[in-house]
Amino acid sequence: ATPPDAALALAARAEAVLQRPLEIDLALDGAGAPSLIGARPLRLSTRALMRAAARMVADGGLTRDAALMMIEPQAVEELLHPSIDPDAERDVLASGVPASPGAAAGRLCLTAEAAEDCARSGEPAILARFETSPEDVHGMHAAAGVLTLRGGLTSHAAVVARGLGVPCVVGATEARIELIDGAPEEGALVTPDGRRIAPGDWITLDGSAGEALAGALLTRSAPPSGDFATLMGWADARRRLRVRANADTPGELATAVRLGVDGVGLCRTEHMFFDPERITAMREMILADSLDARRAVLERLLPMQRGDFLQIFEIMDGAGPPDGDAPPVTIRLLDPPLHEFLPQEAAGVAALADALGQPVESVRKRARELREFNPMLGKRGCRLGIAYPEIYEMQARAIFEAALDAEARTGRPPHPEIMIPLVSAVSELQLLEGRIAAVAKAVEAERGARVEYGVGIMVETPRAALLADQLAPLSTFFSFGTNDLTQMTYGLSRDDAGKLMRDYVEAEVFEADPFQTLDREGVGALIQLGVERGRAHNPRLDIGLCGEHGASPSTVAFCAEAGFDYVSCSPYRAPIARLAAAQAAIAMDRAAAADAADE
Amino acid sequence: ATPPDAALALAARAEAVLQRPLEIDLALDGAGAPSLIGARPLRLSTRALMRAAARMVADGGLTRDAALMMIEPQAVEELLHPSIDPDAERDVLASGVPASPGAAAGRLCLTAEAAEDCARSGEPAILARFETSPEDVHGMHAAAGVLTLRGGLTSHAAVVARGLGVPCVVGATEARIELIDGAPEEGALVTPDGRRIAPGDWITLDGSAGEALAGALLTRSAPPSGDFATLMGWADARRRLRVRANADTPGELATAVRLGVDGVGLCRTEHMFFDPERITAMREMILADSLDARRAVLERLLPMQRGDFLQIFEIMDGAGPPDGDAPPVTIRLLDPPLHEFLPQEAAGVAALADALGQPVESVRKRARELREFNPMLGKRGCRLGIAYPEIYEMQARAIFEAALDAEARTGRPPHPEIMIPLVSAVSELQLLEGRIAAVAKAVEAERGARVEYGVGIMVETPRAALLADQLAPLSTFFSFGTNDLTQMTYGLSRDDAGKLMRDYVEAEVFEADPFQTLDREGVGALIQLGVERGRAHNPRLDIGLCGEHGASPSTVAFCAEAGFDYVSCSPYRAPIARLAAAQAAIAMDRAAAADAADE
Repeated sequence: ATPPDAALALAARAEAVLQRPLEIDLALDGAGAPSLIGARPLRLSTRALMRAAARMVADGGLTRDAALMMIEPQAVEELLHPSIDPDAERDVLASGVPASPGAAAGRLCLTAEAAEDCARSGEPAILARFETSPEDVHGMHAAAGVLTLRGGLTSHAAVVARGLGVPCVVGATEARIELIDGAPEEGALVTPDGRRIAPGDWITLDGSAGEALAGALLTRSAPPSGDFATLMGWADARRRLRVRANADTPGELATAVRLGVDGVGLCRTEHMFFDPERITAMREMILADSLDARRAVLERLLPMQRGDFLQIFEIMDGAGPPDGDAPPVTIRLLDPPLHEFLPQEAAGVAALADALGQPVESVRKRARELREFNPMLGKRGCRLGIAYPEIYEMQARAIFEAALDAEARTGRPPHPEIMIPLVSAVSELQLLEGRIAAVAKAVEAERGARVEYGVGIMVETPRAALLADQLAPLSTFFSFGTNDLTQMTYGLSRDDAGKLMRDYVEAEVFEADPFQTLDREGVGALIQLGVERGRAHNPRLDIGLCGEHGASPSTVAFCAEAGFDYVSCSPYRAPIARLAAAQAAIAMDRAAAADAADE
Repeated sequence: ATPPDAALALAARAEAVLQRPLEIDLALDGAGAPSLIGARPLRLSTRALMRAAARMVADGGLTRDAALMMIEPQAVEELLHPSIDPDAERDVLASGVPASPGAAAGRLCLTAEAAEDCARSGEPAILARFETSPEDVHGMHAAAGVLTLRGGLTSHAAVVARGLGVPCVVGATEARIELIDGAPEEGALVTPDGRRIAPGDWITLDGSAGEALAGALLTRSAPPSGDFATLMGWADARRRLRVRANADTPGELATAVRLGVDGVGLCRTEHMFFDPERITAMREMILADSLDARRAVLERLLPMQRGDFLQIFEIMDGAGPPDGDAPPVTIRLLDPPLHEFLPQEAAGVAALADALGQPVESVRKRARELREFNPMLGKRGCRLGIAYPEIYEMQARAIFEAALDAEARTGRPPHPEIMIPLVSAVSELQLLEGRIAAVAKAVEAERGARVEYGVGIMVETPRAALLADQLAPLSTFFSFGTNDLTQMTYGLSRDDAGKLMRDYVEAEVFEADPFQTLDREGVGALIQLGVERGRAHNPRLDIGLCGEHGASPSTVAFCAEAGFDYVSCSPYRAPIARLAAAQAAIAMDRAAAADAADE
């Protein structure tokens, strides 16, 4: 029976007073008059909670601020991830323990290296291992999903995958992996009924059911519903922090645009060179023994790189408001140590030597020379750009030419921001900025048109934060790279932290994994110092954060409090950051109002 | 002809006015009365300058302060090392980077083992390697000089050689080394012009010029002269900063005591395990697959380690003033990643497996597991001590038992300070301090005697400096480890910086190599922040610096200004630091006096 109107009105009043949907106990007297006996918060799925919040605002029982504060930002993620097509036929290849939720489809890879190569070539990878060790972590970072034959909920694979937010199935004990040393492309995942799944075949992981399935069975993620869109609209109106995406490929960019971002905060250019037809040219460039030879290869890479940027500028132009400026696209110049582009195994070295017509020994020698004791602290980032000016000059030229091409097509100039990675000295920035300006001038002279761009730095060494006062006047923006900044501030490599981190978090030596939750006391203190010194010497400095932490609500709150302009995170997490940014603004306004009332 | 007395008096007056020895032009009139026509500073060798300074002070023409300010501290080093006969014919076999000053002659050795054998047979050895790794350190300890074909000023060879005070030339890229596996006596050093120098041939290294020369060309080292001793005595009376030595072995300690130090600021314990009879036990400990097995090996290592410390305490007791306290000895607990103790080459792995009666495959597997992407940022320092409590507990026990043994022999307690490396979190220090205290209590109960000790930290991660306010109340001392702090603040590995650093310094991207000259702007700012926060929360905190920078006059001046209590450097450089500390005190007093006069 429908409760009488008076009962509904009382319930609505109770919800309005407590500012959240409630489960309410009412008693009706003989005349049908209600009285309230008890009430408790209603446990709802995120989707239902959003619906309730939107309804209560529409009914006038809830403010928009209160509605926004009701939703746990992290919970939004479940609405955005892809899921397995419910109508698909499930051909189970292996079952195990559901160790990290979500679903992923990708090409089967049997080694961390294969997973990395696969991801670099732009295809999702599912990494299947007997078990994982810290040596596999780089492959797990690259993989869309992880499957292991051994281990339980607390195994290395399970812990790392949950940390990464990657679907994972462990302990698929009935399956086997055949792996031929040195030839990972010849192995197989063998199912309990004896079928052999070859590397490169598509498989799908259901991390919630604990199953590996044949084929690619994903549906695209649930389209943001009406209530979701309503709430995100309120969040966007309320937040003061801009939210950008870390996106390198047109695909990632399209996801970002669909889910809503204010621009691109980190476009890594190295991924653009792992495409099979480009990687050989890249390797040839690295192995070139003279400047002229290197220049000749870079000439061939230039149109490819220009094409990448043109695509990116066009997509972002379409995403921006039709009038006004195009959304900014922050492009990071080449960052990783060169040896990452070279094959590590004997077979790969031989194939490369053959392709380039060079002796195997000389390729091996060069690869050996490039090897470093601590690549994280080696010749990478702007140190590469300084050692090989022609690489960054090619990239700058590709950006400028693509910007002019895009403007010719769309009618308005894109807004590229060139980001220089791993700066640790003021003179690095001065030197590179000068070279970039010279390229801009040359392109302008050739094309007879002006290019608009900014140059800024990725603040990821402690020294860049400490020298912010000198770096800020030379920069249009600072983007704090909290991954590396955390590694260097702790003196702890993320790739090597694996088991150590688990022990440390379990023993409560660290309260939380600092690569998951931004360390406010140490890294945060350094960031604050950088923001203060930077702003004091360049009030117009645009300040952002572009690490893995970018979408974590506590990091977003930290950035809002520290006076950041934006955070940048992976496309799927952008809505989380937008909601978290709105909540941070609300919380700060409430605190300010409380302070004002106190006085 | 001797100038008349009036002329000498005038010259002495001119020197007294200008406070330095001068080259003076005088004219004598017909009556022999002098007039001064011109004067310029006299360019003298350090030895002659010291003699002149001591003479002028004795004559009353110069204050002691002025005499001390006259001597370039770095120049003192040349007095302490042997030098090459200036009349000898220099037949250059190879040129490279001058990485550690001084000269040495010895027999060419191509492996660390050969160098050790040579030294044992009573002949000096020059160790020539393609590059060095921690496995070569025992050979470097034995060698009189080190030559490498690869690496720069900050390579492993260069850093270790400087620490040992051993002449070193690195990056002799044009030379080659031929080495036959298993038959080092059959290889050769091949010069750029194709000459083959055989193992056992005499060669001379000029570490200041960066050259390897044919034959034995040395003159004996100059014993510290009377003037040197006089000036150093004045410096000691004048300086406020204490100077300690980085010394790991009784030999280094004896050098330190001979050249004059106020204690040991850094005694690294890892070198104690590279001795051939200990390294196998150490490796057995690392490969142990259970806590009990590890404990059993540590039981065997305990008496060796205790013996090391007993020797060190006794030498330092002898060095201290006969009344008063024994000089402090700061002992750093085990720091390097464990894989550094394992053999890297197949033959070594096989030999180890054989010695331990384990299958080769399991030794290889364990070595692989321990390998890290970025060992510098990996499982080392106190992270080891937390993961394997029994290692630090053994070391603490060895220190405490040795201290009581030493006290029984010498009649006064030594003054050990236990230094915990690579701290990045407060809880690490809390945890380890508790475990050390428990060991102390156990030893005290067993022996019925009290042990006196301090516990402090090596401040070498940026986070430790940032959290100094929380770490200081738990520490008796902070010792800033500027090598690692510089690496992490710049995000630049010393081992990998080699060629990059040369390019950067040449192109003036860096004003100076920050591993040679402390970077005041970045690293220095972080240190100052650490000192201020530390002192504010523990006014009795003893603050020192123990990196390679310890003896550089500009670093000493920085430390004096920042309110440090001591610097610690390699024994041969201690006199430099003592003189630099005196100059810093004089300069600060002069500046304060000038400020006071201004007011």
